[in-house]
Amino acid sequence: MNAMAKPTTPLLAVDIIIELDDRPGSPIVLIERRKPPYGWALPGGFVDVGETLEQAARREALEETALDVRLQALLGCYSDPRRDARGHTVSAVYVARAGGVAEARDDALNLGIFAPGAPPEPLVFDHALILREYLYFRATGRTPPLPGGAM
Amino acid sequence: MNAMAKPTTPLLAVDIIIELDDRPGSPIVLIERRKPPYGWALPGGFVDVGETLEQAARREALEETALDVRLQALLGCYSDPRRDARGHTVSAVYVARAGGVAEARDDALNLGIFAPGAPPEPLVFDHALILREYLYFRATGRTPPLPGGAM
Repeated sequence: MNAMAKPTTPLLAVDIIIELDDRPGSPIVLIERRKPPYGWALPGGFVDVGETLEQAARREALEETALDVRLQALLGCYSDPRRDARGHTVSAVYVARAGGVAEARDDALNLGIFAPGAPPEPLVFDHALILREYLYFRATGRTPPLPGGAM
Repeated sequence: MNAMAKPTTPLLAVDIIIELDDRPGSPIVLIERRKPPYGWALPGGFVDVGETLEQAARREALEETALDVRLQALLGCYSDPRRDARGHTVSAVYVARAGGVAEARDDALNLGIFAPGAPPEPLVFDHALILREYLYFRATGRTPPLPGGAM
């Protein structure tokens, strides 16, 4: 890389697992996407230059679900180049909590509330993997092992 | 954002805290930077399109220190827009272990081995903050709280 050239790196996004902690069993919020790829997904979106990941996560949650979330933990970073067919996008996935009424907005055509072990289908991107790892986190309080284990 | 336009997101980097676990006290490796900003830093660099964060972390560690590292955990993501004066760069910081002899290479002009509580000065970027949070992780086995606490 030329020392003067700006490097090209993968796109950066956030996704948010929102636990509705004022409901029995603390179910989670998923959205049905308005744009391709169509299907169910975690609320999320691209990070803007000038905002932190945490600001992006709270902004995207509010824009798509109308919920004012409290971030709890970083579940992990998902970076497989094949996870988004449109191009290499890395997602930082946060676990958050919120109360109140969720409403589908912006890129969310529809919104549903689900037990985390029984999500709808199809889930887009690698969100089925992310939800499996979230179940591990929810059961143990520990973030999932890094991909490939101790490398 | 136009649905056809490619979004602009912050640049994405990795940094690696390398514990030398074949030495008493498992000290860590820091490098003295060959390029501006000058000073001491964690080994690290930009993520290439097409590689995972974990691959980038192992590659950068090898390129700058000649160590074949085993990744242990994701310490966190550091995303303050002011953390790099050259432009908004988000860093995913990994804790790793390695044995053998470290050698300064590539962007590393010099290399040093330090007790994590007594790093050299000046540390560039937000690496002093990262090392403080690493001390918390090292003492507790828990990743540090998210910036701003439970938001």
